[in-house]
Formats: sequence, structure tokens, C-alpha cells
Amino acid sequence: MSTAEPLLARPLRLDTTEPDFEARLAARLHWSAETDAAIEQRVAAIVADVRARGDAAVLEYTRRFDAIEAASVAELELGADALRAAFDAIPAAQREALQQAAGRIRRYHEAQLQACGRSWSYRDPDGTLLGQKVTPLDRVGIYVPGGKAAYPSSVLMNAIPAHVAGVPEIVMVVPTPRGERNPLVLAAAHVAGVSRAFAIGGAQAVAALAYGTATIPQVDKITGPGNAYVASAKKHVFGTVGIDMIAGPSEILVLADGSTPPDWVAMDLFSQAEHDELAQSILLCPDAAYLDAVQAAIDRLLPTLPRAAIIAASLNGRGALIRTRSMEEACALSNRIAPEHLEVASREPQRWEPLLRHAGAIFLGAYTSESLGDYCAGPNHVLPTSGTARFSSPLGVYDFQKRSSLIEVSAAGAQSLGRIASVLAHGEGLQAHARAAELRLDAEGRA
Amino acid sequence: MSTAEPLLARPLRLDTTEPDFEARLAARLHWSAETDAAIEQRVAAIVADVRARGDAAVLEYTRRFDAIEAASVAELELGADALRAAFDAIPAAQREALQQAAGRIRRYHEAQLQACGRSWSYRDPDGTLLGQKVTPLDRVGIYVPGGKAAYPSSVLMNAIPAHVAGVPEIVMVVPTPRGERNPLVLAAAHVAGVSRAFAIGGAQAVAALAYGTATIPQVDKITGPGNAYVASAKKHVFGTVGIDMIAGPSEILVLADGSTPPDWVAMDLFSQAEHDELAQSILLCPDAAYLDAVQAAIDRLLPTLPRAAIIAASLNGRGALIRTRSMEEACALSNRIAPEHLEVASREPQRWEPLLRHAGAIFLGAYTSESLGDYCAGPNHVLPTSGTARFSSPLGVYDFQKRSSLIEVSAAGAQSLGRIASVLAHGEGLQAHARAAELRLDAEGRA
Repeated sequence: MSTAEPLLARPLRLDTTEPDFEARLAARLHWSAETDAAIEQRVAAIVADVRARGDAAVLEYTRRFDAIEAASVAELELGADALRAAFDAIPAAQREALQQAAGRIRRYHEAQLQACGRSWSYRDPDGTLLGQKVTPLDRVGIYVPGGKAAYPSSVLMNAIPAHVAGVPEIVMVVPTPRGERNPLVLAAAHVAGVSRAFAIGGAQAVAALAYGTATIPQVDKITGPGNAYVASAKKHVFGTVGIDMIAGPSEILVLADGSTPPDWVAMDLFSQAEHDELAQSILLCPDAAYLDAVQAAIDRLLPTLPRAAIIAASLNGRGALIRTRSMEEACALSNRIAPEHLEVASREPQRWEPLLRHAGAIFLGAYTSESLGDYCAGPNHVLPTSGTARFSSPLGVYDFQKRSSLIEVSAAGAQSLGRIASVLAHGEGLQAHARAAELRLDAEGRA
Repeated sequence: MSTAEPLLARPLRLDTTEPDFEARLAARLHWSAETDAAIEQRVAAIVADVRARGDAAVLEYTRRFDAIEAASVAELELGADALRAAFDAIPAAQREALQQAAGRIRRYHEAQLQACGRSWSYRDPDGTLLGQKVTPLDRVGIYVPGGKAAYPSSVLMNAIPAHVAGVPEIVMVVPTPRGERNPLVLAAAHVAGVSRAFAIGGAQAVAALAYGTATIPQVDKITGPGNAYVASAKKHVFGTVGIDMIAGPSEILVLADGSTPPDWVAMDLFSQAEHDELAQSILLCPDAAYLDAVQAAIDRLLPTLPRAAIIAASLNGRGALIRTRSMEEACALSNRIAPEHLEVASREPQRWEPLLRHAGAIFLGAYTSESLGDYCAGPNHVLPTSGTARFSSPLGVYDFQKRSSLIEVSAAGAQSLGRIASVLAHGEGLQAHARAAELRLDAEGRA
């Protein structure tokens, strides 16, 4: 028989009442973030070389890995004119969509700045001032992948929060293998207000941003997704510069009460699965018949999608349709998984929302498809993966700011605080600390 | 000649007008965070062993490294009674100082929670809700060093922000080599509201917190200082749990206009230098005669201090007194150094504060000695070191919270957002994303 079998996507069916449920769920969730030692070694060598030789090393690796011959790194700069030209050249519908998305993302992050990004202070009755000064970073680098995973939306999601935070200089790097430039990525850089852009990528671009070269400015923090080499390079330079999180495969978890059309939910699971074979799509529902209906929708809709092969591989390898005892149990299970994207496909999303503690982004109600959040609802699409939503947050304005404590002790405050500090410092055996406080006491100081 | 030479502390004298100033400053600032490969390997083995064998491995390493024989990890728990007993047993002055410091630290972090730790949301005119939900972490681990570097103030500075953030369970670990317990550390744990405490330390304690054992609960994040093994273990488990920053040697930079008594400034430089030989104390001032006066104060005061040998080693190896052209130049230089602690020893601290962009904590005016901030002013004393204040912040309530985006798209919102998302998703070649948005459009959906 030589006829091709039809492409099937059959996520694992699980039931929380089965005795082996925990073990089977654990196996399905398992994903190892272990990095390849060989990659780490090669990255360490590239980073050291760029640090030592600067532009010359960047040019050499760009020639080797991206097959671009350039006489200087300056030739690899994508000037403001090139970004604007790319924007002008794309179809009007794309121009408009980019601008509308950018406007909404900007507005959301401005609200975030208002809510949590302002300096504050108060005074004690004795006049002592205490507070925190919030300032933007001076210069940040944004890594944008090239090739097939080139996402213009990621340019908006990284550059706009930096811009709203007040970062004066945003430097974008994007590899252009064999000179192929993605016009939407360049157009998005124009819309997002990137300051400078360079057609370089890989570990060499990360190293250039972290240490600076004659042509590429040194930045204070590097954000943005990339392949294993980029992730390894970011880890390597962490400490010299700040970095955002290192992302694992993308994930969606849908909590369904059975009220959302199965086709909608199936397509939402697909929209995660189409990213790559390791992406994870999980559906939780107390109603087994609804899970059957979603599986039927999967079977029917899969052949209509261009990326059906990737979707099928993802759902077969990492997907799951899980029947739970109740919506409450589904919420508790979701908290344990702490998914990157959490859809509450329910008639009563506000009923379940308070039960949901750990997730990168929570999409409430049937109309809130993850894809709306991915592009244009406003919130950031850079979210914590692999359960790290238990302790980390979406990319935001706060990632492009830092805080400095402010303390101005009054002469009166120095008396009361000095006595406390003196006792505690002596208790820790730090006598110079104690003496520094005691010198400010009236009896000892110049007053 | 066998007479001992007198102990001298002579920080490097520099002048910004000298031609070799930049090179000499760079050499003095240089500090390498490179970790020892041998330590990393040993830590990796300990972490793997604790992960595999749990309590048994923890017991074994505690026996080996801390010389404690215990039949079970449960025996190593420091119960609430033990913490309270330690508190009751210390002198009344210490009890009162701990409580006053805790009260001020709590008040400051409550103000921080109000200023930047609350959930927020807004609605579009079409009813779409956008916001961010801020929730505390479920369980955190606090590492407290034992032995000579046992600082009760660090217990307050780590546990209180977690408590204010609303973390329900705070697990402290503290090594007690040969069974020696630091009563002030246990008393501080009582005051700070630690939930559980274990007398374990080192890489084995970090691993136990990260992966959990039969006795020690698994946490979501680990904060707190430690030696090279602890730092390496924290890096190792990062990703499985969150961690705070990895601290380098402590630093102070004093900006002086010559109006603060030289003795006060000398003692402030000492109070940094007494931490350890690698600590860094730098004074910037436009007035060379003032630098001479501070050096004279150093010479006079040094012999009066019990930790004079450490102070001298630190100042001779890493200290600097730098004459600048002006206060403005001093501010600019301070921004380049981005110190952990920055004292503005000036009659006009509010004149210079706006020029200061990068520092962990800014201490304004002659009465604000760093030591007051270290113990009891209120702000956190866990601060970014080694120039990382360019991109990172003091430990705060925000380190014990995380954020989840909230999106609830209305039926009307799904129409406008769906069209934008569809255009951008097709542009990225992600057709399932586009279709998920399009299904919510009236023409396609069930409406």
C-alpha cells in the first residue's frame, strides 16, 4: 500500500479520575531546558572573539553564518530611510494594521507606566524622606529573529514598552541570511520607533550589543527571542547586561465549560501548535462529550491549514484533552501547570478568573482568542513559559526601567535611626557601621 | 628590624585631569564575576544528588560540611518555639532595635506595594477589558548565611518584602556549623514572620528548596546572599525557580562637596570596607584639600576599629579618592560607575539628585550615612552591585509578586481586533492565528 495516510492530530486523552493520571500528565508536560554543551562552547568562543576583535569578528561571523559580504559593519546598518522605505512599500492594509496594533500596544503600556512605573516618596514626621526613583535604562538592544520565524509583531512587543518607559536609544539587530530582508520586520521597526538597526544576528550580534564595538553601541539590556545560539549567548552575557527571560516552547491551556463553539477552541489549539512541533496545547473540560466535539473539529479543520504537518506533530507529541471532575478542579490544575497563555472559554469567565493565580496572560471569554492578544489587544505577547509564570511576569515597561532607593535623613531622624542602627551593627560585629551612625548623634557630631 | 609596621589605609589618589585617569580608574574598578569551574562542577553534583535522593542527601552533606549529626531533616527544623525563644533571650535593647527596624522596613515596603504592586485594568469604549493582575508568589525560600557573615538585618530585608507582598509561606534556611546558632538571626526570623526555618545551608539547601524533599517544601523563588557555592547553586537552579540577583562585593561611592565633616565620610568609607577585602569605597570631590582631610581622618580613625586589617586591605586594594573638575563631573562619573550605595555628602543634595541616574540607593545629605540605610531607614539593603544598577533594582515587594495580563474582548471588540490580527497573522504566515481571529468575526462566527 503506497497511499499516504491522512494527517491525524490526536492529542492525548486524559481523565483526572484515572489512577495513572498524574504520571501521564507529568510525562506530557515534561520539557527539558538543558542546554547543549557543544552549543555553549561555540557561543563562548564567539562571544570572546567579538569582545576582543569587535567589528572585524562581527563581519567574519556574519560572512560565515549569514553569507553576507560586507566591507564594514557600517554597511550592515539599516538606516532610518531603509526602515521607512520598507514601511512605504508594504500593502496599505498591512501598514494600517501595524499602526493600529502599535497604537493599542502603546496605550496599554502607557497605562502600565501610570500604574506601576512612577517614582514615589514620603516623609516621616521628623522630615526624613524615603522613596524610590524610577528611571529608564539608557540604551537597550532588541534581538529580532530572521528567516522563517521572523515576527514583525515581536518588534512591536519589544520596542514599544522600551519606548514608553523612556529609553532614549533602542538598537535592533536582525539577521538577514543571504541578504534577505523581511519587509514587515523593517516596517514594524519604523512604526515602533527603533533608533538604530543592524542586519546582524546570532551569538555575534548579542556579544556586539553586550560589549559594544567601534560601530555597534554597547547596551544595558538585551531582550527578544532567538534560537539556541542566541539564548545561550544571552545567558553568557547576563550580568554584564540585563536580559529578559529565556523562553521555552510556546503553550496554551484552554479551560472550557462547553459553551464555546468547538471549532473556535480547536482553532485556538492550532494557533499555538502551528508555532512549532514542541509547542503545547492543552484543553481542560469537565464534559467528555465536549472534548469529543473538539476532537471532531480538529479532524475536520486540520486539512484546511497550510501548517497542518507542524500542528499534527505538536498535538500528537505534546497536546492533551483532559476531562476534569469540575471547573474548580480544572482551575486548580491550570494553576499547577502555570501556562503561558490561559484561555477561559466559559460563559462565566469572571467566575473563574479569581481562582486563576499562575499564568502569563489570561484570555477571558469566548471572543478572546489568544491570537487577538498575540497581535493587537495591547498586552505584551512576550510571556513566561514552562511553568515560570509561578514567579515571573510578561515583558513590560518595568523591564526597561530600574529603581534607586532615595533616603534623606533629617538631623532629627539621624538621632532615632542612629540609635537603632548602632545596636544592630554592634550585634553583627560591624563597628564601623555603628560608629558611622553614632557620629551623627548630637553628642558626637558637630551640632 | 622586627617591629610591626603601623596599619595604613591609603586609597588610590586619582585626578580626572590626569592623562592616564581612565586607565587607572578602569583598573581599580575591575572585578571579575567569573565563577570557578571546579566549584560549579561540585555544586552540579550536589544539586543532582539532592534532587535524586532528597532528605538523605541533605543529611549527608549537612553532616559533611556543617559537622551536624541528625537522624532526620525534621530534626534540623527550627520550630516557631525556637525562634521565639531566641527572641526572648536576647537583650531588651536588641529586641527593641529589631522590632523598630522591622516596623520601618515594613512601612517602606507597604508604601512600595501601594505605589507599584496593585492590579489595574481599563475598558475600551467597546467594552473590551485590558489590565494586569498582580499576585504574590505561593512560597519563597530565603537563604541566610551562617558563621561570621551572619547578618540578622538580611533576614528582615528578605522576609519582610515577601511578607508585605502577601507570600503565604516563607521558608528560611540557615547553616549552623557545628550546631552554632546565631541568636540574633533566629530572633530576626521571629520578628520578620518567617513561616518555617531549617538549619541547613550551602548548595544542598538551595537544591532542597528548588526541588523539594520529603521534609523541605519546594519553593517558587530563592533570595538571599551566600558564598560562592550558594551563588553557583542559585544560578544552577534558576529557571526551575526564580532567584534574586547574584551579588558581587559591596560598594560605596561618596560624592562630596567638602561640607560634611571628614570624619563622617571616612567612617562611611570604612563601613563599606569592613565587609570584606574586596569591598570598594570611592570618594569623589572637586576639592583636593578635602580629600587630604579625609585621608588624615582615615589615618587617625583606622586604629580605633576592630576590623582595621580588613578595612586597610579593602582601601589599599580597591579604594580611591578622586579629585574631579566639578560636582557635575563627579555626578557624571558616578553614573558611569553605577554604584550600589551612593552618598551625596553635600549641603545641596537636592541639587545633585536629579543628575544621578544609576545607583542602587541614593543617600542624600550629611546625616544620611549608609549604615542608617543598611539597618533601619526602611528601604531594602539588598542592592545591585558591580555596575548592574544600570539595569537592575533593589530587592522589593515586586520581587515577590508576578503579573498576569488580563484580556476580555467584547463581541464588538472582536470585530475590530480580529481584522487587524488577521492581516498581521497572514503577514507572518500563521494561518491558524488568522483563522482563530476570523472565526470570531460576525460573518463567520455563530452570531
